[in-house]
Amino acid sequence: MSHGKQFTLYTHKAGPNGWKVVIVLEELGLAYESLYLDLHKGEQKDPEHTKYNPNGRIPTLIDHEHDDFVVWESNAIIAYLVDKYDTEHKISVVKFEEKIIQLQWLFFQASGQGPYFGQLAFFVFHSKEKHPSVIERYKNEIIRVFEVLESVLDKQEWLIGGKCTVADLSFLMWDCAALSIGVLINHEFDLEKNFPAVHKWHTAMLARYAVKKTLAVKESLSN
Amino acid sequence: MSHGKQFTLYTHKAGPNGWKVVIVLEELGLAYESLYLDLHKGEQKDPEHTKYNPNGRIPTLIDHEHDDFVVWESNAIIAYLVDKYDTEHKISVVKFEEKIIQLQWLFFQASGQGPYFGQLAFFVFHSKEKHPSVIERYKNEIIRVFEVLESVLDKQEWLIGGKCTVADLSFLMWDCAALSIGVLINHEFDLEKNFPAVHKWHTAMLARYAVKKTLAVKESLSN
Repeated sequence: MSHGKQFTLYTHKAGPNGWKVVIVLEELGLAYESLYLDLHKGEQKDPEHTKYNPNGRIPTLIDHEHDDFVVWESNAIIAYLVDKYDTEHKISVVKFEEKIIQLQWLFFQASGQGPYFGQLAFFVFHSKEKHPSVIERYKNEIIRVFEVLESVLDKQEWLIGGKCTVADLSFLMWDCAALSIGVLINHEFDLEKNFPAVHKWHTAMLARYAVKKTLAVKESLSN
Repeated sequence: MSHGKQFTLYTHKAGPNGWKVVIVLEELGLAYESLYLDLHKGEQKDPEHTKYNPNGRIPTLIDHEHDDFVVWESNAIIAYLVDKYDTEHKISVVKFEEKIIQLQWLFFQASGQGPYFGQLAFFVFHSKEKHPSVIERYKNEIIRVFEVLESVLDKQEWLIGGKCTVADLSFLMWDCAALSIGVLINHEFDLEKNFPAVHKWHTAMLARYAVKKTLAVKESLSN
Protein backbone atom coordinates (compact mmCIF):
# COMPACT_ATOMS: atom_id res chain seq x y z
CA MET A 1 0.00 0.00 0.00
CA SER A 2 1.38 3.34 -1.03
CA HIS A 3 0.02 5.24 1.97
CA GLY A 4 2.80 3.82 4.13
CA LYS A 5 0.66 3.27 7.21
CA GLN A 6 0.41 0.01 9.09
CA PHE A 7 -3.26 -0.65 8.37
CA THR A 8 -5.69 -0.19 5.53
CA LEU A 9 -9.31 -0.02 6.63
CA TYR A 10 -12.05 -0.46 4.03
CA THR A 11 -14.94 1.39 5.55
CA HIS A 12 -17.80 3.81 4.96
CA LYS A 13 -18.38 7.43 5.90
CA ALA A 14 -21.60 6.79 7.79
CA GLY A 15 -21.97 3.10 8.75
CA PRO A 16 -21.42 2.51 12.49
CA ASN A 17 -19.47 -0.74 12.07
CA GLY A 18 -16.49 0.94 10.43
CA TRP A 19 -16.34 3.68 13.05
CA LYS A 20 -16.36 1.05 15.81
CA VAL A 21 -13.02 -0.14 14.46
CA VAL A 22 -11.68 3.40 14.06
CA ILE A 23 -12.31 4.09 17.74
CA VAL A 24 -10.17 1.07 18.67
CA LEU A 25 -7.39 2.04 16.24
CA GLU A 26 -7.41 5.54 17.76
CA GLU A 27 -7.47 4.25 21.34
CA LEU A 28 -4.40 2.13 20.59
CA GLY A 29 -2.59 4.89 18.68
CA LEU A 30 -2.20 2.76 15.54
CA ALA A 31 -1.55 4.28 12.11
CA TYR A 32 -4.19 3.52 9.49
CA GLU A 33 -5.59 4.75 6.22
CA SER A 34 -9.35 4.67 5.76
CA LEU A 35 -10.65 3.88 2.28
CA TYR A 36 -14.27 5.00 2.17
CA LEU A 37 -16.32 2.80 -0.13
CA ASP A 38 -19.42 4.18 -1.83
CA LEU A 39 -22.12 1.71 -0.82
CA HIS A 40 -24.67 3.29 -3.16
CA LYS A 41 -22.38 2.50 -6.08
CA GLY A 42 -21.89 -1.00 -4.65
CA GLU A 43 -18.12 -0.61 -4.29
CA GLN A 44 -18.22 -3.02 -1.34
CA LYS A 45 -19.25 -5.73 -3.85
CA ASP A 46 -16.43 -4.93 -6.30
CA PRO A 47 -13.74 -7.61 -6.73
CA GLU A 48 -11.17 -5.08 -5.43
CA HIS A 49 -12.89 -5.42 -2.05
CA THR A 50 -14.39 -8.93 -2.15
CA LYS A 51 -10.97 -10.41 -2.88
CA TYR A 52 -10.31 -9.50 0.74
CA ASN A 53 -13.82 -9.86 2.11
CA PRO A 54 -16.21 -12.32 0.41
CA ASN A 55 -19.08 -10.96 2.50
CA GLY A 56 -18.94 -7.72 0.52
CA ARG A 57 -19.64 -5.53 3.52
CA ILE A 58 -17.53 -3.08 5.48
CA PRO A 59 -15.29 -2.95 7.45
CA THR A 60 -12.28 -4.95 6.29
CA LEU A 61 -8.82 -4.51 7.81
CA ILE A 62 -5.42 -5.29 6.31
CA ASP A 63 -2.37 -5.31 8.60
CA HIS A 64 0.59 -4.54 6.34
CA GLU A 65 3.11 -5.11 9.10
CA HIS A 66 1.81 -8.61 9.69
CA ASP A 67 2.13 -10.19 6.25
CA ASP A 68 -0.86 -8.23 4.98
CA PHE A 69 -3.09 -10.21 7.31
CA VAL A 70 -6.75 -9.64 6.39
CA VAL A 71 -9.71 -9.83 8.73
CA TRP A 72 -13.33 -8.69 8.39
CA GLU A 73 -16.38 -8.52 10.68
CA SER A 74 -15.96 -5.46 12.87
CA ASN A 75 -15.80 -7.30 16.18
CA ALA A 76 -13.35 -9.91 14.88
CA ILE A 77 -11.18 -6.98 13.75
CA ILE A 78 -11.49 -5.45 17.21
CA ALA A 79 -10.59 -8.78 18.87
CA TYR A 80 -7.54 -9.02 16.61
CA LEU A 81 -6.40 -5.47 17.38
CA VAL A 82 -6.60 -5.82 21.15
CA ASP A 83 -5.21 -9.36 21.24
CA LYS A 84 -2.19 -8.36 19.20
CA TYR A 85 -1.60 -4.70 19.93
CA ASP A 86 -3.20 -3.81 23.27
CA THR A 87 -0.25 -5.24 25.16
CA GLU A 88 -0.77 -2.78 28.01
CA HIS A 89 -4.46 -3.68 28.22
CA LYS A 90 -5.59 -0.08 27.89
CA ILE A 91 -9.02 -1.12 26.54
CA SER A 92 -9.04 -4.87 27.06
CA VAL A 93 -8.98 -7.32 29.92
CA VAL A 94 -6.17 -9.69 30.87
CA LYS A 95 -7.49 -12.88 32.47
CA PHE A 96 -8.88 -15.74 30.39
CA GLU A 97 -12.30 -15.71 32.08
CA GLU A 98 -12.62 -11.94 31.64
CA LYS A 99 -11.65 -12.27 27.98
CA ILE A 100 -14.52 -14.72 27.50
CA ILE A 101 -16.97 -12.27 29.08
CA GLN A 102 -15.52 -9.45 26.97
CA LEU A 103 -16.18 -11.68 23.95
CA GLN A 104 -19.70 -12.44 25.22
CA TRP A 105 -20.54 -8.73 25.16
CA LEU A 106 -18.96 -8.35 21.72
CA PHE A 107 -21.24 -11.14 20.49
CA PHE A 108 -24.27 -9.54 22.14
CA GLN A 109 -23.39 -6.27 20.43
CA ALA A 110 -22.85 -7.97 17.06
CA SER A 111 -25.94 -10.18 17.14
CA GLY A 112 -28.36 -8.40 19.46
CA GLN A 113 -27.68 -4.71 18.96
CA GLY A 114 -26.25 -4.03 15.47
CA PRO A 115 -28.63 -6.08 13.31
CA TYR A 116 -31.80 -4.86 15.01
CA PHE A 117 -30.73 -1.22 15.16
CA GLY A 118 -29.84 -1.63 11.47
CA GLN A 119 -33.27 -3.05 10.68
CA LEU A 120 -34.93 -0.05 12.29
CA ALA A 121 -32.85 2.30 10.16
CA PHE A 122 -33.78 0.31 7.05
CA PHE A 123 -37.52 0.34 7.69
CA VAL A 124 -37.54 3.99 8.74
CA PHE A 125 -35.35 5.42 5.99
CA HIS A 126 -34.92 3.01 3.10
CA SER A 127 -37.91 0.72 2.77
CA LYS A 128 -40.24 1.79 -0.05
CA GLU A 129 -43.24 0.29 1.70
CA LYS A 130 -44.02 1.60 5.16
CA HIS A 131 -44.81 -0.98 7.80
CA PRO A 132 -45.66 0.62 11.18
CA SER A 133 -45.83 -2.73 12.98
CA VAL A 134 -42.40 -3.72 11.66
CA ILE A 135 -40.92 -0.40 12.75
CA GLU A 136 -42.55 -0.95 16.14
CA ARG A 137 -40.93 -4.40 16.38
CA TYR A 138 -37.43 -3.02 15.90
CA LYS A 139 -38.01 0.03 18.08
CA ASN A 140 -39.07 -2.32 20.86
CA GLU A 141 -35.98 -4.41 20.29
CA ILE A 142 -33.75 -1.34 20.70
CA ILE A 143 -35.48 -0.50 23.94
CA ARG A 144 -35.05 -4.12 25.05
CA VAL A 145 -31.29 -3.90 24.42
CA PHE A 146 -31.11 -0.71 26.50
CA GLU A 147 -33.05 -2.50 29.27
CA VAL A 148 -30.55 -5.37 29.28
CA LEU A 149 -27.63 -2.95 29.44
CA GLU A 150 -29.34 -0.89 32.17
CA SER A 151 -29.89 -4.01 34.30
CA VAL A 152 -26.13 -4.62 34.29
CA LEU A 153 -24.83 -1.05 34.35
CA ASP A 154 -26.98 -0.02 37.30
CA LYS A 155 -24.79 -2.36 39.37
CA GLN A 156 -21.40 -1.70 37.79
CA GLU A 157 -19.79 1.13 35.84
CA TRP A 158 -18.42 -0.99 32.97
CA LEU A 159 -19.44 -4.30 31.40
CA ILE A 160 -16.31 -6.21 32.39
CA GLY A 161 -13.00 -5.69 34.16
CA GLY A 162 -13.89 -2.55 36.08
CA LYS A 163 -12.76 -0.27 33.27
CA CYS A 164 -13.76 0.86 29.80
CA THR A 165 -12.95 -1.94 27.35
CA VAL A 166 -13.87 -2.88 23.80
CA ALA A 167 -16.92 -4.64 25.31
CA ASP A 168 -18.29 -1.19 26.13
CA LEU A 169 -16.88 0.75 23.18
CA SER A 170 -18.39 -1.67 20.66
CA PHE A 171 -21.90 -0.45 21.57
CA LEU A 172 -21.19 3.27 21.20
CA MET A 173 -21.64 3.94 17.49
CA TRP A 174 -24.94 2.06 17.14
CA ASP A 175 -26.22 3.74 20.28
CA CYS A 176 -25.33 7.10 18.76
CA ALA A 177 -27.13 6.07 15.57
CA ALA A 178 -30.23 4.96 17.47
CA LEU A 179 -30.31 8.16 19.48
CA SER A 180 -29.90 10.37 16.45
CA ILE A 181 -32.34 8.66 14.11
CA GLY A 182 -34.68 8.60 16.94
CA VAL A 183 -35.38 5.49 18.76
CA LEU A 184 -37.34 7.93 19.26
CA ILE A 185 -39.21 8.67 16.30
CA ASN A 186 -42.10 9.47 18.58
CA HIS A 187 -40.08 11.47 21.09
CA GLU A 188 -41.23 9.19 23.86
CA PHE A 189 -37.69 8.19 24.55
CA ASP A 190 -35.32 9.90 26.93
CA LEU A 191 -32.07 8.02 27.58
CA GLU A 192 -31.11 9.98 30.68
CA LYS A 193 -34.55 9.61 32.25
CA ASN A 194 -35.36 6.03 31.32
CA PHE A 195 -31.90 4.48 31.29
CA PRO A 196 -29.77 6.58 33.64
CA ALA A 197 -26.97 4.03 34.00
CA VAL A 198 -26.74 3.56 30.23
CA HIS A 199 -26.76 7.34 29.81
CA LYS A 200 -23.88 7.75 32.28
CA TRP A 201 -21.91 4.96 30.57
CA HIS A 202 -22.57 6.38 27.10
CA THR A 203 -21.60 9.89 28.23
CA ALA A 204 -18.37 8.63 29.84
CA MET A 205 -17.36 7.00 26.57
CA LEU A 206 -18.19 10.13 24.57
CA ALA A 207 -15.72 12.04 26.76
CA ARG A 208 -12.75 9.86 25.77
CA TYR A 209 -10.15 11.50 23.54
CA ALA A 210 -10.18 8.71 20.93
CA VAL A 211 -13.96 8.80 20.73
CA LYS A 212 -14.11 12.59 20.41
CA LYS A 213 -11.47 12.50 17.66
CA THR A 214 -13.33 9.75 15.80
CA LEU A 215 -16.69 11.50 16.00
CA ALA A 216 -15.11 14.76 14.82
CA VAL A 217 -13.70 13.04 11.73
CA LYS A 218 -17.05 11.37 11.06
CA GLU A 219 -18.82 14.71 11.43
CA SER A 220 -16.38 16.44 9.05
CA LEU A 221 -17.11 13.81 6.38
CA SER A 222 -20.86 14.25 6.59
CA ASN A 223 -20.67 17.88 5.54
CA MET B 1 -26.36 -28.66 40.73
CA SER B 2 -27.85 -31.99 41.70
CA HIS B 3 -27.46 -33.57 38.27
CA GLY B 4 -23.75 -34.12 38.94
CA LYS B 5 -22.60 -33.26 35.41
CA GLN B 6 -19.92 -30.72 34.58
CA PHE B 7 -22.17 -28.29 32.73
CA THR B 8 -25.69 -26.96 32.99
CA LEU B 9 -27.06 -25.64 29.71
CA TYR B 10 -30.16 -23.44 29.78
CA THR B 11 -31.62 -23.97 26.37
CA HIS B 12 -34.77 -24.60 24.33
CA LYS B 13 -36.16 -27.64 22.53
CA ALA B 14 -36.39 -25.95 19.14
CA GLY B 15 -34.19 -22.82 18.98
CA PRO B 16 -31.07 -23.32 16.83
CA ASN B 17 -28.74 -21.36 19.13
CA GLY B 18 -28.96 -23.87 21.96
CA TRP B 19 -28.38 -26.83 19.65
CA LYS B 20 -25.27 -25.12 18.23
CA VAL B 21 -23.76 -25.38 21.70
CA VAL B 22 -24.94 -28.98 22.17
CA ILE B 23 -23.11 -30.02 19.00
CA VAL B 24 -19.86 -28.62 20.42
CA LEU B 25 -20.41 -30.27 23.83
CA GLU B 26 -21.03 -33.58 22.03
CA GLU B 27 -18.02 -33.17 19.74
CA LEU B 28 -15.81 -32.64 22.79
CA GLY B 29 -17.39 -35.47 24.79
CA LEU B 30 -18.31 -33.17 27.69
CA ALA B 31 -20.98 -34.09 30.26
CA TYR B 32 -23.89 -31.66 30.46
CA GLU B 33 -27.49 -31.40 31.56
CA SER B 34 -29.88 -29.47 29.33
CA LEU B 35 -32.59 -27.47 31.07
CA TYR B 36 -35.24 -26.71 28.47
CA LEU B 37 -36.92 -23.38 29.14
CA ASP B 38 -40.48 -22.76 27.95
CA LEU B 39 -40.15 -19.59 25.92
CA HIS B 40 -43.92 -19.27 25.51
CA LYS B 41 -44.23 -19.07 29.29
CA GLY B 42 -41.35 -16.58 29.33
CA GLU B 43 -39.16 -18.76 31.54
CA GLN B 44 -36.08 -17.26 29.89
CA LYS B 45 -37.09 -13.93 31.52
CA ASP B 46 -37.53 -15.43 34.99
CA PRO B 47 -35.05 -14.32 37.66
CA GLU B 48 -33.91 -17.95 37.98
CA HIS B 49 -32.43 -17.53 34.50
CA THR B 50 -31.70 -13.81 34.27
CA LYS B 51 -29.56 -13.98 37.41
CA TYR B 52 -27.14 -15.82 35.12
CA ASN B 53 -28.05 -14.13 31.83
CA PRO B 54 -29.39 -10.55 31.92
CA ASN B 55 -30.22 -10.81 28.21
CA GLY B 56 -33.02 -13.26 29.04
CA ARG B 57 -32.40 -15.42 26.00
CA ILE B 58 -31.02 -18.90 25.56
CA PRO B 59 -28.48 -20.47 25.65
CA THR B 60 -26.64 -19.94 28.94
CA LEU B 61 -23.86 -22.26 30.14
CA ILE B 62 -22.60 -22.88 33.67
CA ASP B 63 -19.33 -24.76 34.12
CA HIS B 64 -19.57 -26.35 37.58
CA GLU B 65 -15.99 -27.60 37.46
CA HIS B 66 -14.68 -24.09 36.88
CA ASP B 67 -16.10 -22.19 39.85
CA ASP B 68 -19.57 -22.21 38.30
CA PHE B 69 -18.30 -19.93 35.55
CA VAL B 70 -21.26 -18.52 33.60
CA VAL B 71 -21.24 -17.45 29.96
CA TRP B 72 -24.04 -16.66 27.51
CA GLU B 73 -24.28 -15.83 23.79
CA SER B 74 -23.99 -19.11 21.91
CA ASN B 75 -20.79 -18.28 20.06
CA ALA B 76 -19.07 -16.94 23.17
CA ILE B 77 -19.99 -20.23 24.84
CA ILE B 78 -18.52 -22.11 21.87
CA ALA B 79 -15.33 -20.02 22.00
CA TYR B 80 -15.04 -20.78 25.72
CA LEU B 81 -15.53 -24.51 25.23
CA VAL B 82 -12.92 -24.90 22.51
CA ASP B 83 -10.41 -22.52 24.11
CA LYS B 84 -10.58 -24.38 27.41
CA TYR B 85 -11.47 -27.95 26.54
CA ASP B 86 -10.52 -28.65 22.92
CA THR B 87 -6.90 -29.20 23.90
CA GLU B 88 -6.40 -31.65 21.03
CA HIS B 89 -7.93 -29.19 18.55
CA LYS B 90 -10.48 -31.68 17.27
CA ILE B 91 -12.83 -28.90 16.12
CA SER B 92 -10.73 -25.76 16.49
CA VAL B 93 -7.59 -24.28 15.02
CA VAL B 94 -4.25 -23.76 16.74
CA LYS B 95 -2.42 -20.72 15.36
CA PHE B 96 -3.28 -17.18 16.47
CA GLU B 97 -4.07 -15.96 12.97
CA GLU B 98 -6.31 -18.95 12.29
CA LYS B 99 -8.11 -18.39 15.58
CA ILE B 100 -8.89 -14.83 14.48
CA ILE B 101 -10.34 -16.11 11.19
CA GLN B 102 -12.30 -18.78 13.09
CA LEU B 103 -13.66 -15.93 15.22
CA GLN B 104 -14.41 -13.88 12.10
CA TRP B 105 -16.69 -16.66 10.80
CA LEU B 106 -18.31 -17.02 14.22
CA PHE B 107 -19.12 -13.30 14.11
CA PHE B 108 -20.45 -13.59 10.55
CA GLN B 109 -22.67 -16.47 11.69
CA ALA B 110 -23.84 -14.57 14.79
CA SER B 111 -24.49 -11.24 13.07
CA GLY B 112 -25.11 -12.11 9.43
CA GLN B 113 -26.82 -15.49 9.49
CA GLY B 114 -28.69 -16.05 12.77
CA PRO B 115 -30.54 -12.73 13.11
CA TYR B 116 -31.73 -12.64 9.50
CA PHE B 117 -32.75 -16.28 9.39
CA GLY B 118 -34.55 -15.64 12.66
CA GLN B 119 -36.37 -12.62 11.19
CA LEU B 120 -37.61 -14.77 8.31
CA ALA B 121 -38.97 -17.33 10.76
CA PHE B 122 -40.68 -14.55 12.73
CA PHE B 123 -42.39 -12.95 9.75
CA VAL B 124 -43.40 -16.31 8.24
CA PHE B 125 -44.69 -17.99 11.38
CA HIS B 126 -45.30 -15.54 14.20
CA SER B 127 -46.14 -12.09 12.86
CA LYS B 128 -49.86 -11.38 13.04
CA GLU B 129 -49.67 -9.02 10.07
CA LYS B 130 -48.39 -10.49 6.83
CA HIS B 131 -45.80 -8.44 4.96
CA PRO B 132 -44.77 -10.12 1.68
CA SER B 133 -42.05 -7.52 0.98
CA VAL B 134 -40.55 -8.00 4.44
CA ILE B 135 -40.52 -11.78 4.01
CA GLU B 136 -38.88 -11.23 0.61
CA ARG B 137 -36.19 -9.06 2.24
CA TYR B 138 -35.17 -11.77 4.68
CA LYS B 139 -35.46 -14.58 2.13
CA ASN B 140 -33.07 -12.62 -0.08
CA GLU B 141 -30.72 -12.15 2.85
CA ILE B 142 -30.63 -15.91 3.46
CA ILE B 143 -29.80 -16.50 -0.18
CA ARG B 144 -27.08 -13.82 0.07
CA VAL B 145 -25.51 -15.63 3.04
CA PHE B 146 -25.50 -18.86 1.03
CA GLU B 147 -23.86 -16.99 -1.87
CA VAL B 148 -21.09 -15.69 0.42
CA LEU B 149 -20.46 -19.18 1.79
CA GLU B 150 -20.54 -20.70 -1.71
CA SER B 151 -17.94 -18.20 -2.95
CA VAL B 152 -15.55 -19.45 -0.27
CA LEU B 153 -16.44 -23.14 -0.17
CA ASP B 154 -16.14 -23.62 -3.90
CA LYS B 155 -12.40 -23.06 -3.40
CA GLN B 156 -11.87 -24.90 -0.11
CA GLU B 157 -13.62 -27.68 1.78
CA TRP B 158 -13.82 -25.91 5.16
CA LEU B 159 -13.89 -22.26 6.24
CA ILE B 160 -10.55 -22.29 8.07
CA GLY B 161 -7.74 -24.66 8.98
CA GLY B 162 -8.40 -27.34 6.37
CA LYS B 163 -10.76 -29.25 8.66
CA CYS B 164 -14.21 -29.03 10.19
CA THR B 165 -14.11 -26.51 13.03
CA VAL B 166 -16.59 -24.55 15.10
CA ALA B 167 -16.46 -21.92 12.33
CA ASP B 168 -18.30 -24.40 10.10
CA LEU B 169 -20.42 -26.12 12.75
CA SER B 170 -21.84 -22.82 13.99
CA PHE B 171 -23.78 -22.41 10.72
CA LEU B 172 -25.37 -25.86 10.71
CA MET B 173 -28.47 -25.46 12.86
CA TRP B 174 -29.68 -22.23 11.26
CA ASP B 175 -29.04 -23.72 7.82
CA CYS B 176 -31.16 -26.71 8.83
CA ALA B 177 -33.86 -24.31 10.05
CA ALA B 178 -33.78 -22.29 6.83
CA LEU B 179 -33.95 -25.41 4.70
CA SER B 180 -36.84 -26.88 6.64
CA ILE B 181 -38.98 -23.77 7.00
CA GLY B 182 -38.40 -23.01 3.43
CA VAL B 183 -36.07 -20.56 2.04
CA LEU B 184 -38.20 -22.67 0.38
CA ILE B 185 -41.49 -21.19 0.75
CA ASN B 186 -41.82 -20.90 -2.97
CA HIS B 187 -39.95 -24.06 -3.86
CA GLU B 188 -37.62 -22.07 -6.08
CA PHE B 189 -34.70 -22.96 -3.92
CA ASP B 190 -32.55 -26.05 -4.31
CA LEU B 191 -29.40 -26.11 -2.18
CA GLU B 192 -27.68 -28.90 -4.10
CA LYS B 193 -28.39 -27.31 -7.46
CA ASN B 194 -27.76 -23.64 -6.63
CA PHE B 195 -25.11 -23.93 -3.93
CA PRO B 196 -23.30 -27.21 -4.58
CA ALA B 197 -20.29 -26.42 -2.39
CA VAL B 198 -22.49 -25.36 0.51
CA HIS B 199 -24.56 -28.50 0.02
CA LYS B 200 -21.46 -30.72 0.14
CA TRP B 201 -20.21 -28.91 3.27
CA HIS B 202 -23.60 -29.08 4.97
CA THR B 203 -23.94 -32.80 4.12
CA ALA B 204 -20.44 -33.56 5.43
CA MET B 205 -21.33 -31.94 8.77
CA LEU B 206 -24.62 -33.85 8.98
CA ALA B 207 -22.65 -37.10 8.72
CA ARG B 208 -20.62 -36.42 11.87
CA TYR B 209 -21.44 -38.59 14.88
CA ALA B 210 -21.93 -35.65 17.27
CA VAL B 211 -24.24 -33.91 14.82
CA LYS B 212 -26.33 -37.02 14.17
CA LYS B 213 -26.66 -37.63 17.91
CA THR B 214 -27.68 -34.00 18.53
CA LEU B 215 -30.26 -33.97 15.76
CA ALA B 216 -31.70 -37.28 16.99
CA VAL B 217 -32.20 -35.84 20.48
CA LYS B 218 -33.75 -32.67 19.02
CA GLU B 219 -36.08 -34.79 16.88
CA SER B 220 -37.11 -36.93 19.85
CA LEU B 221 -38.11 -33.79 21.76
CA SER B 222 -40.28 -32.44 18.97
CA ASN B 223 -42.61 -35.45 19.10
